[in-house]
Amino acid sequence: MIVLNFKTYIEATGRKALELARVCEEVSKDKGVSIIVCPQHADLAVIVGEVDIPVYAQHFDNIEPGSHTGWVLPEAVVEAGASGTLINHSEHRLSAADIEACVVKSKALGLVSIVCSNNVAVSKACAAFSPDYVAVEPPELIGSGVSVSEAQPEVVTGSVDAVKSVNDKVGVLCGAGVSTGDDLVKALDLGVEGVLLASGVVKAEDPKQALLDLVSGIL
Amino acid sequence: MIVLNFKTYIEATGRKALELARVCEEVSKDKGVSIIVCPQHADLAVIVGEVDIPVYAQHFDNIEPGSHTGWVLPEAVVEAGASGTLINHSEHRLSAADIEACVVKSKALGLVSIVCSNNVAVSKACAAFSPDYVAVEPPELIGSGVSVSEAQPEVVTGSVDAVKSVNDKVGVLCGAGVSTGDDLVKALDLGVEGVLLASGVVKAEDPKQALLDLVSGIL
Amino acid sequence: MIVLNFKTYIEATGRKALELARVCEEVSKDKGVSIIVCPQHADLAVIVGEVDIPVYAQHFDNIEPGSHTGWVLPEAVVEAGASGTLINHSEHRLSAADIEACVVKSKALGLVSIVCSNNVAVSKACAAFSPDYVAVEPPELIGSGVSVSEAQPEVVTGSVDAVKSVNDKVGVLCGAGVSTGDDLVKALDLGVEGVLLASGVVKAEDPKQALLDLVSGIL
Amino acid sequence: MIVLNFKTYIEATGRKALELARVCEEVSKDKGVSIIVCPQHADLAVIVGEVDIPVYAQHFDNIEPGSHTGWVLPEAVVEAGASGTLINHSEHRLSAADIEACVVKSKALGLVSIVCSNNVAVSKACAAFSPDYVAVEPPELIGSGVSVSEAQPEVVTGSVDAVKSVNDKVGVLCGAGVSTGDDLVKALDLGVEGVLLASGVVKAEDPKQALLDLVSGIL
Repeated sequence: MIVLNFKTYIEATGRKALELARVCEEVSKDKGVSIIVCPQHADLAVIVGEVDIPVYAQHFDNIEPGSHTGWVLPEAVVEAGASGTLINHSEHRLSAADIEACVVKSKALGLVSIVCSNNVAVSKACAAFSPDYVAVEPPELIGSGVSVSEAQPEVVTGSVDAVKSVNDKVGVLCGAGVSTGDDLVKALDLGVEGVLLASGVVKAEDPKQALLDLVSGIL
Repeated sequence: MIVLNFKTYIEATGRKALELARVCEEVSKDKGVSIIVCPQHADLAVIVGEVDIPVYAQHFDNIEPGSHTGWVLPEAVVEAGASGTLINHSEHRLSAADIEACVVKSKALGLVSIVCSNNVAVSKACAAFSPDYVAVEPPELIGSGVSVSEAQPEVVTGSVDAVKSVNDKVGVLCGAGVSTGDDLVKALDLGVEGVLLASGVVKAEDPKQALLDLVSGIL
Repeated sequence: MIVLNFKTYIEATGRKALELARVCEEVSKDKGVSIIVCPQHADLAVIVGEVDIPVYAQHFDNIEPGSHTGWVLPEAVVEAGASGTLINHSEHRLSAADIEACVVKSKALGLVSIVCSNNVAVSKACAAFSPDYVAVEPPELIGSGVSVSEAQPEVVTGSVDAVKSVNDKVGVLCGAGVSTGDDLVKALDLGVEGVLLASGVVKAEDPKQALLDLVSGIL
Repeated sequence: MIVLNFKTYIEATGRKALELARVCEEVSKDKGVSIIVCPQHADLAVIVGEVDIPVYAQHFDNIEPGSHTGWVLPEAVVEAGASGTLINHSEHRLSAADIEACVVKSKALGLVSIVCSNNVAVSKACAAFSPDYVAVEPPELIGSGVSVSEAQPEVVTGSVDAVKSVNDKVGVLCGAGVSTGDDLVKALDLGVEGVLLASGVVKAEDPKQALLDLVSGIL
């Protein structure tokens, strides 16, 4: 399971977001690997309408329908066709109370929930909310090109152990610096069920080749 | 000029947002009145593709393309087809520095900018940023059903005077509690170029009738 | 163990904060009950200098010494003489990552840490950070006059069980609506080691009498 | 008029904050120059009690007395003895509405108000709130050691002109990178009534000598 976060990269905005999602769909189908894309909110509906792989939101706000001009209503994400969401990405941290509420809302709305954490203790805490997945990403490695599975394997294995000790039904992903096939293989060897990545593919000169390299080790 | 803020009302989300935008388009064309709709980010692209009236964003973040998971890139709003944006709505206040930067970005990206203010002093301050419009809305009247043009006419005329004293090319709108044709006529009499409204139409039993009532006084 | 949060009540600001702290000291010594006071940052140093009961901060920010004008440096709280701190009060929520970092800083600086939570799931999550205490307070009951131990006993017992299941060295407090001796007895019966309270004493006509009533049930 | 912002530097926290304030008092009295110190909230009361120069807060929150655990009540700052306050420092930006409200509260409480801005347009906007002073500080020069009066004199003169065009009773200060006597002379030549500085003195090996150097050009 590969989750590709489009962030707010200009290479993954609007028309280019749709192109990138199509590349992901192509590689996913050709290689039989599960690839999930997380485009910006403004791009969700178009991508959902055009590609046939899971599309997740990057975030939604812990709000009820009503007077919240400019914020992201969970129901809007669902209506746009998202089937899951990231929660508490390190670039968009939420209070502990809001993370919990967003996981509850995700379940109520039928969205797969991936709660991001920054270290082993936070991974353990997030497991207490029983999301579908906890994704551990040490912030200092995000966008660094150095894979967490190489640089801090103990954070990955520690998160797997900590999460499973609280609730063994919660899956674990890892991210930060993941870009090559080797990185992915090492991550899976450390016990995770998938990876979360962004710049390694989105900002690659040839995103399709980057994705093919990434999945090459597990085919 | 009537600006309809869809907020995050469930009656203006997803499929229903598109229906409401179509009603606005119909009334706008039938009656020859300028109506602008401000749907949620996730609904922008679909509505732009389906209706032929101006569509504005409710907000964007003061960010550059890059690593800002879950935030709203101004370029994404433009790619989705928005031709303008609200800035600093009272439900999504920005720092003074960010308001200024968002007006600058709006100009660079060709977006019409409507900066919201909460009183005369803030209207005057916002005029210093030279947006296309300043929209004054006393927060305590928002959603109240009591029109600012009735309850606090001095805030409207004071804002018109204050804004024009700083930069007479900046237009002035008013909002908060506006819902009837009378409210609109009184607002225009106080010197504004249009109104910003939301619940009075969005949450009306018959939004089309509410819009027809609203514009009846100026036909 | 009774923790009295002074919040930003005018009855517990400046000179009046010192008076209230003296009342707490008097009751604590006369009755042999542990009472901890949490005044505002601006009042910490003076109260520490004048009373001989533990003084905790209401909050500090997750910052290092440096360029953070207007924020609360943990080292400043320590220099002012605080011996502990609340973390993540429902009126000042922190991200999960910041809660974890604040607990780590508290340990490094020798501060007793009380992490506030809003429900059982968040209590369990906070226990993963191994603070000295988790204090559960359903936000809707704060300041209500209806004690959590009466209105939602299952949140209290659920938090005790959840916290102990993660780390049995973490103490549990409860709060929200606690004001009478009965409330305190019921809370202790539910398994907590103490209570967190505010308005019931701070805003009482006679705070000393309110404190005496509170502790009457456990003498 | 020299305003020294202690920020959250460890060299200006607790006991060291008091020492630094005493140095400022000594230089102020010996040289007949107005020096104002802005320590952290936890240090306000002690410094006010020990030195005889004006002591300003670095910030307060736009809140009324009540349930705001961990935030900074304006009345608490006044009770601690502050006679003025910074508002909207670039490290603690406020919404336009909150800046306006904080200026109003400052006037009501008898506090001198210094509103910080980041460029000419924001200086002009802040003048609309009629604070006692607007202090312009380009964020990229803060802590740089390169003085705004040298690197961006047009931002200083532009702010003076813009502020005076809106309200000529509002004073103008400048800051960012100011550290030497030359920087100060140049700033005054550009039309400001004083400077706001921090690291140039606080982090100097010998703060007293740094202050003496600073004021040397204007004696």
